[in-house]
Amino acid sequence: MKSTQITIKDIARELGISPSTVSRALKDHPDISPETKKAVNKLAEELNYQPNSIALSLRHRKSNTIGVIIPEIVHFFFSTVISGIEDIAYGAGYSVIISQSNESYEREVMDTKAMFNNRVDGIIVSMSRETQDLSHFESIHKRGMPMVFFDRSCDLFNCSNVLVDDINGGYQATSHLIEQGCRRIVHLQGPSSLTITRDRHEGYKKALAEHNIPYNKDLVINDEMGNDEQSAKDIFGKFFDTASEKPDGVFASTDMIALGAIQALKARGLRVPEDVCVVGFSNWQFTSLTEPTITTVAQPGFEMGQEAARLLIREIEADEDTVLEPVLKTLKTTLIIRDSSTRKK
Amino acid sequence: MKSTQITIKDIARELGISPSTVSRALKDHPDISPETKKAVNKLAEELNYQPNSIALSLRHRKSNTIGVIIPEIVHFFFSTVISGIEDIAYGAGYSVIISQSNESYEREVMDTKAMFNNRVDGIIVSMSRETQDLSHFESIHKRGMPMVFFDRSCDLFNCSNVLVDDINGGYQATSHLIEQGCRRIVHLQGPSSLTITRDRHEGYKKALAEHNIPYNKDLVINDEMGNDEQSAKDIFGKFFDTASEKPDGVFASTDMIALGAIQALKARGLRVPEDVCVVGFSNWQFTSLTEPTITTVAQPGFEMGQEAARLLIREIEADEDTVLEPVLKTLKTTLIIRDSSTRKK
Repeated sequence: MKSTQITIKDIARELGISPSTVSRALKDHPDISPETKKAVNKLAEELNYQPNSIALSLRHRKSNTIGVIIPEIVHFFFSTVISGIEDIAYGAGYSVIISQSNESYEREVMDTKAMFNNRVDGIIVSMSRETQDLSHFESIHKRGMPMVFFDRSCDLFNCSNVLVDDINGGYQATSHLIEQGCRRIVHLQGPSSLTITRDRHEGYKKALAEHNIPYNKDLVINDEMGNDEQSAKDIFGKFFDTASEKPDGVFASTDMIALGAIQALKARGLRVPEDVCVVGFSNWQFTSLTEPTITTVAQPGFEMGQEAARLLIREIEADEDTVLEPVLKTLKTTLIIRDSSTRKK
Repeated sequence: MKSTQITIKDIARELGISPSTVSRALKDHPDISPETKKAVNKLAEELNYQPNSIALSLRHRKSNTIGVIIPEIVHFFFSTVISGIEDIAYGAGYSVIISQSNESYEREVMDTKAMFNNRVDGIIVSMSRETQDLSHFESIHKRGMPMVFFDRSCDLFNCSNVLVDDINGGYQATSHLIEQGCRRIVHLQGPSSLTITRDRHEGYKKALAEHNIPYNKDLVINDEMGNDEQSAKDIFGKFFDTASEKPDGVFASTDMIALGAIQALKARGLRVPEDVCVVGFSNWQFTSLTEPTITTVAQPGFEMGQEAARLLIREIEADEDTVLEPVLKTLKTTLIIRDSSTRKK
């Protein structure tokens, strides 16, 4: 990625004036004051601005392609987001190309550069778990690449974000368990580095408080759970065996963890939902295929993808002079009630 | 996509000489005979060959990106292939970008053009079910874009193919059912347009023949099965209810169809595997999570991806003078035996 690809927008931002003013100043337009022309030309020279370079003209030629960078494509949630993005993008005449970072910062940087060099018109991103330094995004955004973030928010620079209301998701799951008669509800958490983990936990606490059930931190398990059912089965099983008072409900941060908990309970001769109710999160395909089927919180993946694509295309197709305010959209979750939490009354 | 991007390779192919001869003829090299020079220059003029055009130089500049076009990313098999491609590609310094055709010919054409315009260095493809006309692939391949096909073979032009031995897969599944004591084995087929459907059926017949079980076409069901468990449940259930002699084994062309069959059997009070054994195909994630867990034929997705990426990179990195013969790799399947077919003896 060449660091010399300075655009009119960079000059405009630096001087606090509009891109169209910069453009007209460079063309010696009579409407622009001599002071402004002088300031613009001075900065253009300093930054080595090349209005007619081939690189620049190519960069600005539309490729009608939208790039999507996500942690992993095999995850059901992300694949529904992609379908939503495609629904809007292909309808508007854009192709969609996808890269997966595999939750690796290094690969995310490589993918971002590749998307930029492949001349996509804009990028939709859900960041990897490892990502702390955002300069790979910032540097291409500064060069005029439209970007929208989803699910894992990015607030370091002025980009639009499309998020899920995970607090509400955790609240829905926990309230439902309480309504089923559960009082000792274990919360099996995901990776503590993610905002979504903290938000789901927040919703769990909120539901308990509303029903006057005291919060007990011993019932919250975040033991580097991973996201496979085997480790969840082992960790929750160990917890269950040593607990003096047994839990009667489980709110798991992911469906895979919920499945592990169900397997641990079955292995101990307990019935789900009669003895213990279990709720997961994400509505993975398998949750409707297991026995019992698993109650879960569905994220509006398809709608998120649609929303992100709409915001991105709006930015891609805006005139250079239009300044778009970044948008924050937060979408609601839906509780899908299945057998793992439905007690016959 | 400009139709004027003629390369040295096109001229060489047309005249039946090597690209390096063409290159030297165009440069008036003393080693090349006057007749050859005349023929090359005449054809170059006819085809409007432009050695110094910007488009051409850009086209030949490496982007270090590999494009992958597949029917659907949510499919477990394809996601493992992608992991295999990435394993080799990122290791060799290439980013991977993916587009899904959603089994639509029209979108596949759009994606192919986008990949070409985004200047990927080469493309790995598994074609959509709808695709009959291959001209969108042929036209970019002619312009020098390296291409490798996998799973669904393409033999219309000289490209390498990486395939799965589906005949052997069908043979393994059916032989295993016979070894479990099954004699009336139903075969629930996938879409009849696909080679993989015909090959799995071929393997089914082969295993029956080897065990002297007569082939009975009434036991082969291809009733626009779709690939969801609900329609498989309905169609197989209806078949089961009306069959005068009940089947004792099921070989399903996909795991989802296998699951539908299991659900139909359970709904009729039959036990799997005691009354009927069931085997699926693909080793989707859920097959190890259901009750009973499902015996299935695993395709070597990861290895296929690795192999396809190796073949493509070999082509990308070959000298312009080197002529690479297309390669056909056929990889073996593995039978994964689980509860749905394991009778206690």
